[in-house]
Amino acid sequence: MMNHTLPAEQTRLVPGSISSPRPKARRVSKRSKIIVSTAVVIGLLLLLAQLAFPNIFVSRSASNKRKNVIFFVTDGMGPASLSMARSFNQHIHDLPIDDILTLDQHFIGSSRTRSSDSLVTDSAAGATAFACALKSYNGAIGVDPHHRPCGTVLEAAKLAGYHTGLVVTTRITDATPASFSSHVDYRWQEDLIATHQLGEYPLGRVVDLLMGGGRSHFYPSGEKASSHGQQGSRKDGRDLIDEAKANGWQYVGDRKSFDSLLKSNGNNVTLPLLGLFADNDIPFEIDRDEKEYPSLKEQVTVALNALEKASKEDKDSNGFFLMVEGSRIDHAGHQNDPASQVREVLAFDEAFQYVLEFAQSSNTETVLVSTSDHETGGLVTSRQVTASYPEYVWYPQVLANATHSGEFLKRKLVDFVHNHKDANSKVKEYIKHEILEKDLGIFDYTNDDLKTLIHLGDNANAIQDKLNDMVSFRAQIGWTTHGHSAVDVNIYAYTNKKTTWSKVLEQLQGNHENTEVGQFLEDFLELNLNEVTELISDTKHSSDFDSAEIAGEVPHYDEYFHELSN
Amino acid sequence: MMNHTLPAEQTRLVPGSISSPRPKARRVSKRSKIIVSTAVVIGLLLLLAQLAFPNIFVSRSASNKRKNVIFFVTDGMGPASLSMARSFNQHIHDLPIDDILTLDQHFIGSSRTRSSDSLVTDSAAGATAFACALKSYNGAIGVDPHHRPCGTVLEAAKLAGYHTGLVVTTRITDATPASFSSHVDYRWQEDLIATHQLGEYPLGRVVDLLMGGGRSHFYPSGEKASSHGQQGSRKDGRDLIDEAKANGWQYVGDRKSFDSLLKSNGNNVTLPLLGLFADNDIPFEIDRDEKEYPSLKEQVTVALNALEKASKEDKDSNGFFLMVEGSRIDHAGHQNDPASQVREVLAFDEAFQYVLEFAQSSNTETVLVSTSDHETGGLVTSRQVTASYPEYVWYPQVLANATHSGEFLKRKLVDFVHNHKDANSKVKEYIKHEILEKDLGIFDYTNDDLKTLIHLGDNANAIQDKLNDMVSFRAQIGWTTHGHSAVDVNIYAYTNKKTTWSKVLEQLQGNHENTEVGQFLEDFLELNLNEVTELISDTKHSSDFDSAEIAGEVPHYDEYFHELSN
Repeated sequence: MMNHTLPAEQTRLVPGSISSPRPKARRVSKRSKIIVSTAVVIGLLLLLAQLAFPNIFVSRSASNKRKNVIFFVTDGMGPASLSMARSFNQHIHDLPIDDILTLDQHFIGSSRTRSSDSLVTDSAAGATAFACALKSYNGAIGVDPHHRPCGTVLEAAKLAGYHTGLVVTTRITDATPASFSSHVDYRWQEDLIATHQLGEYPLGRVVDLLMGGGRSHFYPSGEKASSHGQQGSRKDGRDLIDEAKANGWQYVGDRKSFDSLLKSNGNNVTLPLLGLFADNDIPFEIDRDEKEYPSLKEQVTVALNALEKASKEDKDSNGFFLMVEGSRIDHAGHQNDPASQVREVLAFDEAFQYVLEFAQSSNTETVLVSTSDHETGGLVTSRQVTASYPEYVWYPQVLANATHSGEFLKRKLVDFVHNHKDANSKVKEYIKHEILEKDLGIFDYTNDDLKTLIHLGDNANAIQDKLNDMVSFRAQIGWTTHGHSAVDVNIYAYTNKKTTWSKVLEQLQGNHENTEVGQFLEDFLELNLNEVTELISDTKHSSDFDSAEIAGEVPHYDEYFHELSN
Repeated sequence: MMNHTLPAEQTRLVPGSISSPRPKARRVSKRSKIIVSTAVVIGLLLLLAQLAFPNIFVSRSASNKRKNVIFFVTDGMGPASLSMARSFNQHIHDLPIDDILTLDQHFIGSSRTRSSDSLVTDSAAGATAFACALKSYNGAIGVDPHHRPCGTVLEAAKLAGYHTGLVVTTRITDATPASFSSHVDYRWQEDLIATHQLGEYPLGRVVDLLMGGGRSHFYPSGEKASSHGQQGSRKDGRDLIDEAKANGWQYVGDRKSFDSLLKSNGNNVTLPLLGLFADNDIPFEIDRDEKEYPSLKEQVTVALNALEKASKEDKDSNGFFLMVEGSRIDHAGHQNDPASQVREVLAFDEAFQYVLEFAQSSNTETVLVSTSDHETGGLVTSRQVTASYPEYVWYPQVLANATHSGEFLKRKLVDFVHNHKDANSKVKEYIKHEILEKDLGIFDYTNDDLKTLIHLGDNANAIQDKLNDMVSFRAQIGWTTHGHSAVDVNIYAYTNKKTTWSKVLEQLQGNHENTEVGQFLEDFLELNLNEVTELISDTKHSSDFDSAEIAGEVPHYDEYFHELSN
């Protein structure tokens, strides 16, 4: 995959292939002469100060010019997710009402989310707005409304001398991480996305660290690659994992090898790093077997250690850009599963808290920005469950009683049903005592509930919907859709330098178009996305299928997350 | 109503009755000696400056110490109401996607809304949190969780020498205005609330200006008071309107007399002013006959002119405190009527814009704070209308096509039904051509829609729900309840003084408990609510009914808005 050639005029500014050292690109500067003059005066003052107090500047000298940006995406998290998770957290820990989430403490604005072709965006257009600072159509991955590849913040950061990373809990080839690191017409082209992410496109490799789920698009089905996992799905038969290893990537594919990285504080990590911990999504936090899968916070810990170490060891490094996604808040929304969503939000909040502490203890100018691409599910922390006028309540204790997701329990029940055909009474007892009472903590189920669940047989998605609805109904949590909605989403930010805070406030405080979040990233890192756009125009971005084949073979992008989670 | 006596120890600090001049209460100060010393130095500098440039300070000298606060409540407006109204506005005026509401431009934070007894507040507890800066139970009007009257920002402001006003579009005795100007155990005690508002309680009169709907609780039913309106409902037979006039209130009860105030730029206004423009609610903006009812902006214009004039003419005035409520955003939410809600939000935004311009041109230190008590309806700008996976869309044009509210059309249809008994075919044609096609712009109604509407006969509320659902369904707008929800609501703010902005940001930027909004009002106006609480402990606040009677006679407070709007 590394044997493609670049147009001659592009090779100068473009990093080389993985195995060859790449020339450092110049950091793009917008400074005017006036600012330069001011800088000269300030520089002289600093020089005088340094002569007078020689020790003050020593510890910062190495990191002084560097910047770190950690950009968080809470996929599908709307304003109601916050009040739900916050009240749930207060409930389970018996906290006072002013004990709020870490995120809450850094709330500074909101983002308008519409895409170029709808008031309701999908995650692809949403992430492309952050990555390329432009509006595109639903389904677009790093391409503009005319399907032209657009330079991303991550690519520009790499060209400008930053280290780069992507950490997610869904497939690493899914819309959000893909939009920062690849360019394709439609989000379902995940086989192609994986090759871009590993460097098979005009810029060569620009991502130093890829971590999350989604192994399936890195190896083919069949015996050939069974050592990697169970569900390889590449149609071209290539084994990108073996290719990457041969090209110098460090690969971690299970909890054990991940743990050796985690325990080494980054010392066992070499970049580039490819960490793929599940064939598809990493399980919901509520279901996650911690012996098998790392948490988002653990992934972020390894990523920060690795990027920080690499950045410090490279005297030319300008710092790092890391995108962290709380990916599956969105899936809990699509599935209308409030018990799973509150745990996803809290797991994200823990990861955010960890990065916050990292920034607080860092001498390098560090900015955290966290926002969502859109809301998912039309979640409302209130639901009318009677024909007569509703009480003003919702019950977090119902979510606390549930110990598994609907996604997990549908599989568990379907397995039982398959193993007990023609044994309806056993299935009924299993539903009552195992699924409802033990797993969901629901004891007030009705005969109609039982009849419905038995009648559904092995209809996995219908079982999932029914179980999630039983939880939502009892918690008096409402949903209006299995898709997305158009409500504004929150923006959170933090910086460890007072002088930086005014820049953050100026660009992100208040209500903004989602593209302005991307604009902030571009401005703060002193990048020029247009220059990158010029370099990537030859990227292969169209599908190998024609549109008729796409319509027939590939699920509509809106349904896509369903395909792999079933 | 003015012949009550005050305990001797309270009379000193309490304003007198309407007809007697009241002693000016000292403004409560928290300033320390350090601040005083700084003030002395600044004062000397200002003195020197004034000697050097004698004309600069003349125009501001009178207003220099004053402060104006305009506090806005968007009752029932959640985050989704904003994206809905904004996109609707862009649609009807063909505006670009970054053409946002005036409110949007002043977004600085969010408020957590729970009450002392539920995660989902009602408007009474919500407004009491703003007025008294404390959490109370659902239904509480200016009383704490133990039913003890709590001093309000408006009362403390009056005692501290500010002029005061309340402007609403619902009943002036409804929960939000009531919580600033009265103290009762439950919000349905509106007869008692009206007497407090006119000064019949320990503090005497503290409100200088009352404007909105809600005449019904100011006069009795029957012939006796028919000159005031159609639906007088006082159970004690008193005519508070005539009593108020006799006690020196200026009363305006119709559009014509309101217009004479509006056109005079405040010159025709004398305080106290009682303006009651409807027996119950002022009609929704979408239905409002401008020949009969003033808009919220017009009401606010008169209020600002009157308070500004009174404040300027009174050399001891400290400025004014005005509460303005976009009351019926909430009602459109309760009724799940998106076409009405977008117009209510835009009418509010116009009023906010007017006050903003007033503040921008004022020399007096002026702060605008706008927030909601809670969200209503579980509004979501997205709705799954098919069993299969939804498209990512919603359609503002459907809301643009509707020209009346469901509330208006249910009355219109019920009237027609009553006049055409046993003429089903006429009713059917009327529903098709008059209600659906002409009034709602709906041409794709189904036979089932028609059958349902005919079948409902004169069931007014069911007709309203069906018509609103037909609009919501076609716009793909979702709702989860006819009640309230627990989502955080937005906070907006503006000030015309840079030095004040840092105070505003410090206390209101980011995520806050709703009581902190009340705390900001108390702090900024330099008030002490506890001192007021001590003065009002003897207020009559319990109902004349016992609880059994209440349960039987009075609808549950959650249903209360329905009673008068049917």
